[in-house]
Amino acid sequence: MNMTRIIMHGCNGHMGQVITGIVANDANAQIVAGIDLRDDGHNSYPVFASLEECNVEADVIIDFASAKAEDTLVDYIKKTKIPAVICTTGLSDGQIASINEASKSVAILRSANMSLGINTLFKLLQDAAKVFASAGFDIEIVEKHHNQKLDAPSGTALALADSMKEVLDDDYFYRYDRSQLRQKRDPKEIGISAVRGGTIVGEHEVIFAGEDEVIEFKHTAHSKAVFAKGAVEAAKFLAGKPAGMYDMRDVIAAKN
Amino acid sequence: MNMTRIIMHGCNGHMGQVITGIVANDANAQIVAGIDLRDDGHNSYPVFASLEECNVEADVIIDFASAKAEDTLVDYIKKTKIPAVICTTGLSDGQIASINEASKSVAILRSANMSLGINTLFKLLQDAAKVFASAGFDIEIVEKHHNQKLDAPSGTALALADSMKEVLDDDYFYRYDRSQLRQKRDPKEIGISAVRGGTIVGEHEVIFAGEDEVIEFKHTAHSKAVFAKGAVEAAKFLAGKPAGMYDMRDVIAAKN
Amino acid sequence: MNMTRIIMHGCNGHMGQVITGIVANDANAQIVAGIDLRDDGHNSYPVFASLEECNVEADVIIDFASAKAEDTLVDYIKKTKIPAVICTTGLSDGQIASINEASKSVAILRSANMSLGINTLFKLLQDAAKVFASAGFDIEIVEKHHNQKLDAPSGTALALADSMKEVLDDDYFYRYDRSQLRQKRDPKEIGISAVRGGTIVGEHEVIFAGEDEVIEFKHTAHSKAVFAKGAVEAAKFLAGKPAGMYDMRDVIAAKN
Amino acid sequence: MNMTRIIMHGCNGHMGQVITGIVANDANAQIVAGIDLRDDGHNSYPVFASLEECNVEADVIIDFASAKAEDTLVDYIKKTKIPAVICTTGLSDGQIASINEASKSVAILRSANMSLGINTLFKLLQDAAKVFASAGFDIEIVEKHHNQKLDAPSGTALALADSMKEVLDDDYFYRYDRSQLRQKRDPKEIGISAVRGGTIVGEHEVIFAGEDEVIEFKHTAHSKAVFAKGAVEAAKFLAGKPAGMYDMRDVIAAKN
Repeated sequence: MNMTRIIMHGCNGHMGQVITGIVANDANAQIVAGIDLRDDGHNSYPVFASLEECNVEADVIIDFASAKAEDTLVDYIKKTKIPAVICTTGLSDGQIASINEASKSVAILRSANMSLGINTLFKLLQDAAKVFASAGFDIEIVEKHHNQKLDAPSGTALALADSMKEVLDDDYFYRYDRSQLRQKRDPKEIGISAVRGGTIVGEHEVIFAGEDEVIEFKHTAHSKAVFAKGAVEAAKFLAGKPAGMYDMRDVIAAKN
Repeated sequence: MNMTRIIMHGCNGHMGQVITGIVANDANAQIVAGIDLRDDGHNSYPVFASLEECNVEADVIIDFASAKAEDTLVDYIKKTKIPAVICTTGLSDGQIASINEASKSVAILRSANMSLGINTLFKLLQDAAKVFASAGFDIEIVEKHHNQKLDAPSGTALALADSMKEVLDDDYFYRYDRSQLRQKRDPKEIGISAVRGGTIVGEHEVIFAGEDEVIEFKHTAHSKAVFAKGAVEAAKFLAGKPAGMYDMRDVIAAKN
Repeated sequence: MNMTRIIMHGCNGHMGQVITGIVANDANAQIVAGIDLRDDGHNSYPVFASLEECNVEADVIIDFASAKAEDTLVDYIKKTKIPAVICTTGLSDGQIASINEASKSVAILRSANMSLGINTLFKLLQDAAKVFASAGFDIEIVEKHHNQKLDAPSGTALALADSMKEVLDDDYFYRYDRSQLRQKRDPKEIGISAVRGGTIVGEHEVIFAGEDEVIEFKHTAHSKAVFAKGAVEAAKFLAGKPAGMYDMRDVIAAKN
Repeated sequence: MNMTRIIMHGCNGHMGQVITGIVANDANAQIVAGIDLRDDGHNSYPVFASLEECNVEADVIIDFASAKAEDTLVDYIKKTKIPAVICTTGLSDGQIASINEASKSVAILRSANMSLGINTLFKLLQDAAKVFASAGFDIEIVEKHHNQKLDAPSGTALALADSMKEVLDDDYFYRYDRSQLRQKRDPKEIGISAVRGGTIVGEHEVIFAGEDEVIEFKHTAHSKAVFAKGAVEAAKFLAGKPAGMYDMRDVIAAKN
């Protein structure tokens, strides 16, 4: 495998630093430049205040900056044709449209959740859901997160449910609360329960419950490093790829 | 240990038969008579159509009959002073009052859930809740039951929560649904989630989530035999006891 | 879907009766005849003492009889061309050879484990193992069974491991005990732990542990009914199939 | 509650810094001085190169230094009568003897595992083991740790088992491997299984498996912060205590 040369966009943020640590231990990748407004010189690579100032040759950009810097990023990759793994969240509809437009001329990868584990589960759960639903199994999801999280259920829990719903009959629906009902479970409901407590980083459990038989798929993230690791895998995958829109499932499919 | 002689009230119902099987393998207990309106002679003990007709000497009665037969039972134990383990549910307030009244002259044991495991958990969870709550841990409960269950959360989940609430500050409250909120978890809320699917007999999990540390207590019932087993343990405990109202926690305390 | 007409070979054994109950609630299947030496007339279908005496038209045979009756079965399906789901265990090498021979002229399905859940896991775990192993995840298996089980690890745990090994590098090996070593885990070892206790019917958990991320796949059987259910699904699949040797993975593949 | 003033012995080591962070967010504790050979002035409290140089008034010392510094520590607390929470491991028998000797004149707390969760479990598991063992439940332990750990099973798993064994019959014994046997489980064996993979910080699960009923107690550490947190709780407990040898169970008992 070749050495993948990475520009780290947002290198001094929390995720930028986690990625810096992971790449330092990866024999097949190297950060050749960082981009950040603030810098105290502690990184082992040169840091530029903006992409425009960066003149270092690279194979791919990893973007964990802020939504405000996204327009500059899109202009830069359209001009240089350097592929980009975009992990920044909170983008506007306009920004997403311009990312999609840019993907006609340069390779871009963007995913709701960068962890290898969750993205592998997406595909496996679709396969499982088809088999188990047709055999009459009920589908439930339980997710657990820390006590500071504002939303419930988690975006990833909903993405897992949506992913299964794609391969199921149209009449499946989500149930978030059963305490106000007094009725048997509807076979077409997917119960989604949200547990909150302590500093739990993130657990997602999908349960298929049938007659005297239960199958569970569980993903546990122990730290945010899993999202960083996924971004680095994505970067190594995306380097050298033709123009187009990719997501983490393509990274995983390429490993099979 | 002496042999405990049991009258099985409701011997030909589902639970009566499960208890019959369990006692058959217990060297310290024996069913000396059964009571049931219907009987085809397949039991190894004599069966009477009502308690009044039963003239067999016994140490204790196990009651898994119907609420309709409860008044006769109460009259019988007041007269004979034979202790009774009452497992029949759906009793009226009047019936419960007369049971309490009867306990002034004869030993009676009655519990919401007869399983040894759950009842042992009640006590341990109180001890745990005191320590963990004072150390800032969040408390959550997840219960799982089959898809035919009408109520949610389960009575046992509520009993577990109530039991912990007894030893906690007054301002703890229960949260059944988080999907309609967008806010951080309240330290005083106890989240209770109900999962439904397949033929799951009953799982109850109590979670204490703190800073980088989670403790879970989980009870799984694989069949209704656990409730039968608890009833037999209760019967062996209750035989020979002085008048009074007992519950499963007394059975467990006596083992320590 | 058509109605599948089943001959239940060994209808009055434990598994034969469980299957009888399951088919009674299946709108697309029906037992049209049973075969058993003993019969008290309690089944809703006619029971014959041997296959030779059975003149009822049928689409498929489910076999949960004894190994002694296997030769008669094989002769019968070769003659009648009625497909057979063979669940009887303890067959001799000679019997297995004659089953394979028979499959040249009639459809036969035979699997180590009949549960739909476990057999679905086999395929999903192969997909998962390829992705996770190449990403540096460690693979471990924990299985739990009742305290009367003689062998450890379970045949199903070994089959799960073997199935993953098929898609991994040749140098993976199994580790059953770490207490005698004082060394770091070998990346190529698959740890297999066997827990024994109570009446646990069967749990199998496959764990992929990576950097700050763990994915678990767990199957729990709550009763032997899951094996019966798998046999009925297999029967409905096999009816009308051309001659050949099938297994449970074909049943599952047909659902996708 | 009063403010507890802490001297952090080994303040610039990994655990010393984790404790510094935890105390910064604790309204009832404050680090008033640190002791470390190396210091770059980044802590908010004064740092001294050795205890002898430290003239700051304090209520308690937390020790996460190296075994080499232990003799100086013991001399210091004997002279000043400042209580000490000793978390340093790898002490010689001579050092342990001198710590025990010192506890005659000053309060000392020392524990194998400083986490609040594990130490609470010790006591609860003894209570549980008595009840469940007498009711015929089987006891099993499964522990999971990262792939760099040398020993198996973990010291904490053995401590949990030893703790239960204290309250059980003498003939209980540990079983680490079942793959070489072909026999039913001995009721007196406690199976201990060690799973190794990825970066798992530490999970310990104690299983009580009975007839159709399983109770599980599980502790998960998500980071080493749990040991730091336990040390701070211990320090707040120990301040002002009379001379004697304490451990984490005393900290927990005081909360009840």
